Amino acid sequence: MTSRVVVIGGDAAGMSTASTAKRLAGDALEVVVLEGGSFTSYSACGIPYWIAGDVADRDTLVARTPQEHRANGIDVRMRTEAMGIDVAARTVSARDEHGHVEQFTYDHLVIATGAEPIRPDLPGIGADGILGVQSLDDGQRVMDALEAKPDRVVVVGSGYVGLEMAEACIQRGCAVTVVERGPQPLSLLDPDLGSRVGDAMRGLDIEVVTDTEVTGFRTGDDGRVTGVVTDGATYDADLVILGLGVGARTALASDAGLPTGARGGLVVDDRQRVQGAQNVWSAGDCVVTYDRLTGELIHLPLGTHANKQGLVTGRAIASMVAGTDPGPPFAGVVRTAITKICSMEISVTGLREDAAREAGFDPVAATIDSTTSAGYFPGAVQMSVRVVADASSRRLLGAQIVGGSGAGWRIDTLAMALWTEMSVDELVMTDLAYAPPFSSVWDPVQVAARAAVKALG
Amino acid sequence: MTSRVVVIGGDAAGMSTASTAKRLAGDALEVVVLEGGSFTSYSACGIPYWIAGDVADRDTLVARTPQEHRANGIDVRMRTEAMGIDVAARTVSARDEHGHVEQFTYDHLVIATGAEPIRPDLPGIGADGILGVQSLDDGQRVMDALEAKPDRVVVVGSGYVGLEMAEACIQRGCAVTVVERGPQPLSLLDPDLGSRVGDAMRGLDIEVVTDTEVTGFRTGDDGRVTGVVTDGATYDADLVILGLGVGARTALASDAGLPTGARGGLVVDDRQRVQGAQNVWSAGDCVVTYDRLTGELIHLPLGTHANKQGLVTGRAIASMVAGTDPGPPFAGVVRTAITKICSMEISVTGLREDAAREAGFDPVAATIDSTTSAGYFPGAVQMSVRVVADASSRRLLGAQIVGGSGAGWRIDTLAMALWTEMSVDELVMTDLAYAPPFSSVWDPVQVAARAAVKALG
Repeated sequence: MTSRVVVIGGDAAGMSTASTAKRLAGDALEVVVLEGGSFTSYSACGIPYWIAGDVADRDTLVARTPQEHRANGIDVRMRTEAMGIDVAARTVSARDEHGHVEQFTYDHLVIATGAEPIRPDLPGIGADGILGVQSLDDGQRVMDALEAKPDRVVVVGSGYVGLEMAEACIQRGCAVTVVERGPQPLSLLDPDLGSRVGDAMRGLDIEVVTDTEVTGFRTGDDGRVTGVVTDGATYDADLVILGLGVGARTALASDAGLPTGARGGLVVDDRQRVQGAQNVWSAGDCVVTYDRLTGELIHLPLGTHANKQGLVTGRAIASMVAGTDPGPPFAGVVRTAITKICSMEISVTGLREDAAREAGFDPVAATIDSTTSAGYFPGAVQMSVRVVADASSRRLLGAQIVGGSGAGWRIDTLAMALWTEMSVDELVMTDLAYAPPFSSVWDPVQVAARAAVKALG
Repeated sequence: MTSRVVVIGGDAAGMSTASTAKRLAGDALEVVVLEGGSFTSYSACGIPYWIAGDVADRDTLVARTPQEHRANGIDVRMRTEAMGIDVAARTVSARDEHGHVEQFTYDHLVIATGAEPIRPDLPGIGADGILGVQSLDDGQRVMDALEAKPDRVVVVGSGYVGLEMAEACIQRGCAVTVVERGPQPLSLLDPDLGSRVGDAMRGLDIEVVTDTEVTGFRTGDDGRVTGVVTDGATYDADLVILGLGVGARTALASDAGLPTGARGGLVVDDRQRVQGAQNVWSAGDCVVTYDRLTGELIHLPLGTHANKQGLVTGRAIASMVAGTDPGPPFAGVVRTAITKICSMEISVTGLREDAAREAGFDPVAATIDSTTSAGYFPGAVQMSVRVVADASSRRLLGAQIVGGSGAGWRIDTLAMALWTEMSVDELVMTDLAYAPPFSSVWDPVQVAARAAVKALG
């Protein structure tokens, strides 16, 4: 007997699920994927680098095309937008690019609709030339807009994507302004490190405007955006990039009565099963995930989680229809992330000091300066590590790294310490790799851990 | 009441101990350091890079000079060789460069005599021009020998130091041959990765001779080495570098009746107290350390352990004489190491497959190929990860990485997994940093862990 899974969404989470389930279940499973856009299995994180010109060819961002998925036995329907879910009847209706609506029955449903840029409800938000960047179709729209050689680009908000896009637009020859509501760009960092990001951006001739609230968008007679209005000045703009973060794209699921949490993310268990629903699964940027530090369900839309959750979902479905091994569950997150802005590497894991306090910990923080290789080694550049530890348990709660080339990767060591609930005392004594081209004899991570031990007293 | 600690040896372990103890105990402790050589607190690991010309100035390898230590209240005696220890009388006799012998009484003795290159007992070993590289004085002797512009250098053995020195001598314009007894250079690697190191060295025009046993050294009438004799050919040489590894430099301690283990390393507890002795401590390249994987005491002479053990020793002594916090003990090692040979980064942690089997595990291994950044990202280069896991517990037992720039550091993630006895199943699900300039969306470490999971079945 063949079961059918319908997957809504054909990027990381959806296609990981589809590929894993099909590979494991084989003929026992028919897999249909409904994708509203023009691409499957692409690297959304690569979009800013393509726009910057670092990555020459858009199509190299596509790990697997619809044709390749079809060759693996997956029925991929492109430019086919899911319109409604009926969980009682186990059907999904979808409309293809010709306006034709089809009803799909399913045994298992996977909602992998991803996230969408937050569009603030402000005067003028509907003007042409105000673009978010989440899907590769979004990216193509930004590329098309850049073909018109806009003089001035304003980026509203300064999360990772906003900053990466600011740098990309500078590389494309535009004048760029970043407008941020908070006191510094990249609010994921504590202020002492975050201020350095602002300095690096200004060094690249990006105008960074902080403590400034966007109140609307000025629009020309042609309906195109001409400026970003704030509680201070108005900033001329030929193109506006929204960098205010994303929310889960779950209107469809919500309309079907499925439960949502933070930023609209669907609530799932550790096998990615939607809470309270039968045979409905969800993975990727449209779910909330378990935060191992706070125990909360948070919305953390990153490709690395989408792929893992897709693997878990695909295995779970295959285990139900074909009896294969479901493997381990999705084990949650510790909020690890990395980016590169200008020549600066920035990475974080766990909680900022203030977030740790809000979560009920008693945090103590320490920041140290070190170098990316032995200080005497040619090419050694400055790096800083900030660690946050809990005064009562002495466990690591979070860390942030800002520095030159070779600084950022050390966050993985700290992420592993967080994952295993290691104390900063133990971290000081762990056996990390040392050679002069790679590190000082006391790894900067351990120098920071020692500073935290000292601060804990 | 002032106690006195006498420290024998003024490099990493000795000076870390001395500095830590003095800083914590202050006037309660008189610290005397006896150093036979000309330098204190230098980076022995930096010597090959200085010889190669990458590091221009020898003195930048010195983290702290004798004068600086003296300014911190430490009585440093340079070119003063310890001659004998009397543990019953609590005295050390030492001879200074003028031949004057002095007797030092102690309340605490720290043996930090380090390691010395293994000199095989073969015909001609006493010839001039056969040099080991361990101390900075050794390094200076190699530099002096290179001033004479030797045409041909033969490196005997191919551990880290041997290979780093081979590359350094190539950079200095010499023709270089490496003679290795085993089937491949760098026996720390399993054969599939080790063979790539040989290829990279040959690509740099280093002659690599494997499966070849050195049987003696040919000597000229002037007493200088002229060739390396093997069970195959004889290799002409104007300079021979010994790269056969090092043994603990513990003749003095052994003569005093102190217990030694693997490669002559002094046996200490986790506070670095020499077993069975009163108030005698030892740290660094002259001790054996606890291997967290096998439970054995192994000789693993690396600067990173020397510094940590020095910290532990210094704190322990200060706690006894001044009542300060002894802090955590030395927690053992998982055999993490990294180096860079030619443009290839090589890193290891834990056990090779065969070593794991010898240690009583039931190892399963898997090797994967990946790239140092997202495959489409400019500058992405090839890297390979090999992981060894235990079939019964499924825990990680070891890992090896070989690849281009940006490959090697990932060993720290694997070292943390080893340290915490993580299963490869859990490692697949850990939250590591991802962005296209740094990694594929599945980190190579996790791709390798997935391959191991598959191999375990």
